[in-house]
Amino acid sequence: MPENDPLEIAAEALCTTACWCYAQGWVPATSGNFSVRLGSRILVTASGLDKGTLTREGLLEVDLDGRKVAGSGRPSAETGLHLALYRARPTAGAILHVHTVWNTLISAHHAALGHVPIEGYELLKGLDGVGTHEHLEQMPILENSQDYAQLTAGMTAALDKFPRAHGVLLARHGLYTWGDSVADARRHLEALEFLFEVEMRRLTGGHS
Amino acid sequence: MPENDPLEIAAEALCTTACWCYAQGWVPATSGNFSVRLGSRILVTASGLDKGTLTREGLLEVDLDGRKVAGSGRPSAETGLHLALYRARPTAGAILHVHTVWNTLISAHHAALGHVPIEGYELLKGLDGVGTHEHLEQMPILENSQDYAQLTAGMTAALDKFPRAHGVLLARHGLYTWGDSVADARRHLEALEFLFEVEMRRLTGGHS
Amino acid sequence: MPENDPLEIAAEALCTTACWCYAQGWVPATSGNFSVRLGSRILVTASGLDKGTLTREGLLEVDLDGRKVAGSGRPSAETGLHLALYRARPTAGAILHVHTVWNTLISAHHAALGHVPIEGYELLKGLDGVGTHEHLEQMPILENSQDYAQLTAGMTAALDKFPRAHGVLLARHGLYTWGDSVADARRHLEALEFLFEVEMRRLTGGHS
Amino acid sequence: MPENDPLEIAAEALCTTACWCYAQGWVPATSGNFSVRLGSRILVTASGLDKGTLTREGLLEVDLDGRKVAGSGRPSAETGLHLALYRARPTAGAILHVHTVWNTLISAHHAALGHVPIEGYELLKGLDGVGTHEHLEQMPILENSQDYAQLTAGMTAALDKFPRAHGVLLARHGLYTWGDSVADARRHLEALEFLFEVEMRRLTGGHS
Repeated sequence: MPENDPLEIAAEALCTTACWCYAQGWVPATSGNFSVRLGSRILVTASGLDKGTLTREGLLEVDLDGRKVAGSGRPSAETGLHLALYRARPTAGAILHVHTVWNTLISAHHAALGHVPIEGYELLKGLDGVGTHEHLEQMPILENSQDYAQLTAGMTAALDKFPRAHGVLLARHGLYTWGDSVADARRHLEALEFLFEVEMRRLTGGHS
Repeated sequence: MPENDPLEIAAEALCTTACWCYAQGWVPATSGNFSVRLGSRILVTASGLDKGTLTREGLLEVDLDGRKVAGSGRPSAETGLHLALYRARPTAGAILHVHTVWNTLISAHHAALGHVPIEGYELLKGLDGVGTHEHLEQMPILENSQDYAQLTAGMTAALDKFPRAHGVLLARHGLYTWGDSVADARRHLEALEFLFEVEMRRLTGGHS
Repeated sequence: MPENDPLEIAAEALCTTACWCYAQGWVPATSGNFSVRLGSRILVTASGLDKGTLTREGLLEVDLDGRKVAGSGRPSAETGLHLALYRARPTAGAILHVHTVWNTLISAHHAALGHVPIEGYELLKGLDGVGTHEHLEQMPILENSQDYAQLTAGMTAALDKFPRAHGVLLARHGLYTWGDSVADARRHLEALEFLFEVEMRRLTGGHS
Repeated sequence: MPENDPLEIAAEALCTTACWCYAQGWVPATSGNFSVRLGSRILVTASGLDKGTLTREGLLEVDLDGRKVAGSGRPSAETGLHLALYRARPTAGAILHVHTVWNTLISAHHAALGHVPIEGYELLKGLDGVGTHEHLEQMPILENSQDYAQLTAGMTAALDKFPRAHGVLLARHGLYTWGDSVADARRHLEALEFLFEVEMRRLTGGHS
C-alpha cells in the first residue's frame, strides 16, 4: 500500500470519521458500517467491529460484486446495500451508515408516510447542490428487514424514486448517507443529524 | 500477577470501560459497580470509589461466596447481586451496573408492569443471540430495596423467570447487564442504553 | 506554599473540579464560583474568570470576614454566601456553585413551593448520611436577588430551616452544594445534578 | 506577521473558539463563520471550511468594504453581515456566528413576534452591561434569506432598532453575537446558548 494511494488516504479519513461517530454515540454496540470506493475497488468495514477503535485493519477490500479481494474477517452484512448505493450513485466515493437516537425516532415518526420531509432550515445548505433553506429534502424510509436481498432491492428502488435525496433511512434502524469524498459524506451526515434532531424536537415540543 | 493472566487482562478492560461509563455520565457520584470472573475467581470494585479514575487497585478479589481473597478496601455492597448473577448465568465473564438518566426513567415508567418491553429496533441485534429487530426484549424490573438479601433473591428469581433477558433493572436505581467478556457486556450496555433513550423519548414525545 | 499544605492540595482538586464543571457546561460564560476552607483560611475564585481554564492563580485567600489576605483580583461577588455557608456548616471544607440547565429549570418549577422535594431514587445515597432511596431530600430555593446582603441572610435562614439539606438553590440562578472535602462536594454535585435532570424529565414527560 | 501583533493574537483565540464550537456541535457541516477586527483590518473565515480543524490559514484579511487584502480562498458568503455589524457596533472586536439546535428552535418559536424575549435568569449577567437577572433581553429575529444584500440591510436595521441587544438571530438559521474581544464574544455565546436551551425547555415542558 503506497502512502499516496488515494484509496488508502480515503481509508484513513474513513477510520477517523468512524471513531468520531462513535464518540458522538452514533454507532453504539458495534453497529454501523462504513466504506470508501475508488473506481472498482471498495473498502468496507468488517462485520462486528467496535467502531470506536476502527483502524485500517478493520477494512476489507471487496469488488463491485461484493467478493472479498483482500483483508481478514467477513465483510459487513450490509455490504450489499453499499454496493447498490455505489451502483445508483456513480460519483459517490464514501458511504456512512449510523444508528442515532434522532434518526431512529424520525424514521419511526414518518414511517407510514414513507419519507421524511424537511424544509426551511439554513442547514439544508450543508447538502450537495442545495443553495437555499427553501429546499424541500425528501428522504425515503425503507421498511426494516433482515432479508438483505429485499433491503438491497428497496435501496435501489428508493434511490431511483428519490433521485435528489441525500440519504436513505431504514425505519427504526438507521441512516445511509454518502458523498464524493469522506469529507462530503461526513458533511452530509452532520447536516442531516442536526436537521433530524431539530425537526423531531419541533414536532414533539408542542409549542413550536 | 503475570501480565498474560486472562483475568488481569479482563480487569484492565473493565477499568477502561468503567472510566468510559463515567465520562458518559452513567456512574455519577461514585455510583455503579463492575466485576469480571474467571472460573471461581471474581474481581469486583471496592465500595465508594470514583469510577472516573478506577484502576486495578480499585478491584478486590472475592470467591464465589463473596469472601475477600485479595486487595484492599471493602467489596461493593452489591457484590451479592454479582454473585447471584454469575451463579444464574454460568457463561457470564463480566458484569456492569450503571445508573443513567434513561434507565432510571424507563424503570420508573414500567415499574407497575414489572418489566420493560422493547421491540422493533435494529439495535436489539446488539444483544447476544438476537438476530432480528422483531425480537421482543423483556427486561425484568426489581423493586428497589436496601435489603441486599432481598434484592439478591429478587435477582435470582428474575433471572429464572426471564431466561432470555439481557439485563435486569432495579426501579429508579439502575441496570445490571453482563456478557461472556467485558467487550460483550459493554456492547450490551451500549445497546440497552440507546434503546432506553429512544423508547422513553418515543413514549413521552406524544407524536410518535 | 509548601507542596504538602493540605489547603494547597485542596486548591488543586478544586481547580480540577472547576475545569470539569466547565466541560459539562455547568459554569458557562464565567459563571459559578468555588472555594475551599481549612480552619480560618478560605481560598475562593476571583471574580469574572473563565472556569474552563481555572488555575491556582485564579484563587484568592480571604479570612472568615471576607477580607482579602493574599492573591490578585477581586473575590467573587458571592463570597459572602460562601462565608455564610461555612459558618452554618462547620465541617464543610469545599463549596461548589454552578449554573446548569436542569438546576435552573427545577428551581423555577418549584419556586412557589419554596423547596425542591426529591425522593425514591437510589442516587440519593450519593449524599452524605443518606442510606436509602426512601430518603426525602428537601432543598430550599431562595428567591434570586442582586442584593448580596439579602441573599446571604436568606442563605443563613435556609440552612437553619433545612438542617439536613445537601444544597441550596437560588431560583433561576444556580445551586450551592458543599462537602467536607472537594471530593465530597463534587460527589454531592454529581448526585444532585443527576437527580434534577431525572426529576424534571419525569415531571415534564407526561407519561411517567 | 509579528507574534505580538494584537490581531494575530486575536486570530489564534478565534481559531480555538471555532474548534470548541465545533466540539459542542454548534457549527456542523462546515456551517458558521467567525471574524476578528482591529481598526480597519478584519480577518474572517474562508468559505466552506470545516470549523473543527480551523487554523490561521483558514482566515482571510478583508478591508471594511469586504475586499480581500490577504489570504487564500473566498471570504465567507456572510462577510457582508460581519461588516454591517462592525459598522453598527464600533467597539466590537470579534463576531461569532453559529447554528445550534436551540437557537434554531427558539428563532422558529418566536419568528412571528420578531424577537426573542428572555428575562429572569441569572445567566443574563453574562452579557455586557447587564447587572441583574431582572434584565429583559430582546433579541431581534431576521427572516432568513439567500439574498445577502437584503440580510445585510435587515441586520443593520435590527441593530438600529434594538440598540441594547447582544445578538441577532436569523430564523431557523443561527445566531450572530459579538464582543469587544474574542473572550467577550465567546462569553456572550455561552450565555445566550444556555439561555436559549433553558427557555425553550421551559416553553415546551408543559409543567413549568
